[in-house]
Amino acid sequence: MRRLLDAAAHEFGELGFHAASISGITRRAGTALGSFYTYFNSKEAIFSALVTDMSRSVAEAAAAAMGADSTGVDREREALSAFLRFARDHKEIYRIIDEAEFADPVSYRAHYEGTARRIAARLDAGVETGQIARGDNEVRAWAIMGANVFLGLRFGVWDDSRPVADIADVVAAILREGIAPR
Amino acid sequence: MRRLLDAAAHEFGELGFHAASISGITRRAGTALGSFYTYFNSKEAIFSALVTDMSRSVAEAAAAAMGADSTGVDREREALSAFLRFARDHKEIYRIIDEAEFADPVSYRAHYEGTARRIAARLDAGVETGQIARGDNEVRAWAIMGANVFLGLRFGVWDDSRPVADIADVVAAILREGIAPR
Repeated sequence: MRRLLDAAAHEFGELGFHAASISGITRRAGTALGSFYTYFNSKEAIFSALVTDMSRSVAEAAAAAMGADSTGVDREREALSAFLRFARDHKEIYRIIDEAEFADPVSYRAHYEGTARRIAARLDAGVETGQIARGDNEVRAWAIMGANVFLGLRFGVWDDSRPVADIADVVAAILREGIAPR
Repeated sequence: MRRLLDAAAHEFGELGFHAASISGITRRAGTALGSFYTYFNSKEAIFSALVTDMSRSVAEAAAAAMGADSTGVDREREALSAFLRFARDHKEIYRIIDEAEFADPVSYRAHYEGTARRIAARLDAGVETGQIARGDNEVRAWAIMGANVFLGLRFGVWDDSRPVADIADVVAAILREGIAPR
């Protein structure tokens, strides 16, 4: 199952949903066609499973990078740093998640709604402990997620020459004090 | 030409790139197939022209909404408000621009690089006049653009029940003073 999902990530990432095939996936995984059908009914089914799997991997990478006692803006800085590193190590993720907008809209939406909910929950916790100013954490979460996604595309996938810390510092400064003069 | 582009926006927006057809576009436009080929050589060619046209329309909508003498964060607030209104009025734009990532990667990248460049140029101008604190305006521009794109998806296309001003206020507050307590 894990081997099929990894093979599917390469197959869909290289060829896109339409050109990808079940036989291409099993060839990459080095498994028999029969074992594919033990787990999945169709190309659509393994694509959905892959989107869900990648969504979970990104969330876990962010969670693992967040120090147990980091809070507020520091926590968002760690989450963005983890995401940039993840995007650099898994450059196929954009092709796959973005293609889900067309090939599997339900999983696409679930991925972003779930991610935004996790960010909003962190901000809510920060408000409780006084690390985050009170405000509309749902809108803030969508803004932060969007910033992270596009920074990952620009400074993770398209061009990974700048240190992750540089990018994360700029965003942390915006969250800490905005961009207007003090 | 304009009529063909508008018809193409509906055809690609409803059916997606693969299922869309030249005959579907000319039928919607009420023009003969021959007149299509006066302007475009292929489905790919009109899709590229459509992405470029939508990219220009978004830029113009933002430019038209920005008051001649607005500067700094106010200007970004106006640009986001204009974009949210545009997304609500042209819900097909996400399907089309996002599908360009696969159907026409060059136009996709040009759209976002151009948009980020315009935001960075506004921030640079704001630094000159003292409305924006000095900083890395390229990274800031990608962060702001990403926030706007995802807010447009969430609060423009998926659910347009909240007033545009509410969303714009939250983002303007982040840009003005961050989300950390003062």
